[in-house]
Amino acid sequence: MSAPLFERVALIGIGLIGSSLARVLRRDSPGTTIVACARRAETLEAARRLGIADATTDDPAAAVRDADLVVIAAPLSAYAEIGPRIAPHLRDGAIVTDVGSVKGAAIDALQPTLPSHVHFVPGHPVAGTEHSGPEAGFAEMFRDRWCILTPLPDTAPEAVARVTALWQLAGMRVATMPAEHHDKVLAMTSHLPHLIAYTIVGTATDLEDTLKSEVIAFSAGGFRDFTRIAASDPVMWRDIFLANREAVLEMLQRFSEDLTALQRAIRWGEGETLEKRFAETRAIRRSIIEAKQA
Amino acid sequence: MSAPLFERVALIGIGLIGSSLARVLRRDSPGTTIVACARRAETLEAARRLGIADATTDDPAAAVRDADLVVIAAPLSAYAEIGPRIAPHLRDGAIVTDVGSVKGAAIDALQPTLPSHVHFVPGHPVAGTEHSGPEAGFAEMFRDRWCILTPLPDTAPEAVARVTALWQLAGMRVATMPAEHHDKVLAMTSHLPHLIAYTIVGTATDLEDTLKSEVIAFSAGGFRDFTRIAASDPVMWRDIFLANREAVLEMLQRFSEDLTALQRAIRWGEGETLEKRFAETRAIRRSIIEAKQA
Repeated sequence: MSAPLFERVALIGIGLIGSSLARVLRRDSPGTTIVACARRAETLEAARRLGIADATTDDPAAAVRDADLVVIAAPLSAYAEIGPRIAPHLRDGAIVTDVGSVKGAAIDALQPTLPSHVHFVPGHPVAGTEHSGPEAGFAEMFRDRWCILTPLPDTAPEAVARVTALWQLAGMRVATMPAEHHDKVLAMTSHLPHLIAYTIVGTATDLEDTLKSEVIAFSAGGFRDFTRIAASDPVMWRDIFLANREAVLEMLQRFSEDLTALQRAIRWGEGETLEKRFAETRAIRRSIIEAKQA
Repeated sequence: MSAPLFERVALIGIGLIGSSLARVLRRDSPGTTIVACARRAETLEAARRLGIADATTDDPAAAVRDADLVVIAAPLSAYAEIGPRIAPHLRDGAIVTDVGSVKGAAIDALQPTLPSHVHFVPGHPVAGTEHSGPEAGFAEMFRDRWCILTPLPDTAPEAVARVTALWQLAGMRVATMPAEHHDKVLAMTSHLPHLIAYTIVGTATDLEDTLKSEVIAFSAGGFRDFTRIAASDPVMWRDIFLANREAVLEMLQRFSEDLTALQRAIRWGEGETLEKRFAETRAIRRSIIEAKQA
């Protein structure tokens, strides 16, 4: 049997993403030893019950010992604590990667704390569901989705290649771009849609009671798609908005201007403006279907 | 064999909704004669090819002759023309219903033109997809969704009962409420979500080219759900926003205030406000799942 891609993988965080990756390794890389680290005892217990870890610990320092790959899959707000905790215990030549949704903030939090004898490859598998926790994961979650790596100018290409191979094992297509660019693209494709979904579902929550119960009953007309997005993990999303503040606020500003323009067209009965705008957006949908991301 | 629910049904408009209803009648009410009416020859040709009509015509007056049920399934902006065209040709005791998404405007356009010897039962089957045209329809589209009827104070209960039976045949649950109330509920559950989806996809359309192509490639993180909604029929949606102007503007105002509050929380780094709001919205999702509308 050929050597596994990684001998020993430490997963710092074993939620939706971490546990899905563990399932991929279990399935496709049986020679890999998986160490799962989480703060809460219930989470570790779940990881054991699911059989997706060979060892579990609540201590990040213990988890990374002897690991040739460390995957940080915790909320972004935990990075500042995790970096200094694991740094002294990282093996020479270990690769450290992460799955955080904001790469600028991930790099700012981790890079200064990591020793020069390890390779840091920031990454973001763009996949997920509205569920969270180790029970919600599944190996096929990554299939045909994109993983974006944002290596630093001095990141060793071999380390990038090995992290690329990891996500390809999970069925992902892998792209590389600067962290700042990633954060702008995701602000538009993911962060702003989530903010808006959270907002509109919140607006409905505040409705008078009779109206609210009917909004729930008759949610089939578009609203329920928003509620699915707005059911995503609150802590993770709090962290994302705080960590990608500038790019989100910029995209939100553009969105608000466009919304105001449509609002004005509705108020003044400008049907042509509305129809023209609505027809344009169909083209984007077609592009997404052609890009096989629909 | 027992008598069919309706002997002769005239469908004025044979797009997504009209053609889906025709399929239901074909499947579950074989004794019913279906007359399809559309403006465009291609649409009528499609209806014939699909075998979902016994007769086709581009003349609404001819279509409704001898029909005991007339279903107006055309864009709302066509109602003002359709009403006077069909009125003189409606059979005594015929039931006229419609499927328009804004009931106040539907009633305003049709009610004054209809003769007193017919029964008008305004309705709205809350079902659909982002596709349009007769090819896009399917009988199961209505299954387990709600149909809202908004009869007028003087509408005969027997007529309401027969239209109720029609949509129940399609697998729908049927509710009754005043038109004004319907228009408020739908402004929140359907019209505002569509407006927002159209807006955000439009915002992406206007991005610089490099950013735009990557938004398409990496759309999996929430954005693609919006593009599906924003691929809905532009003319139908133009009409909805113009017809339900007041309720949409009211809900939009509430939404904008809530969005501004979250924007402010992001700008000032108020993580607690964000997390609290995001956690609340999960509860709404659970209610929808319990209401079996997810």
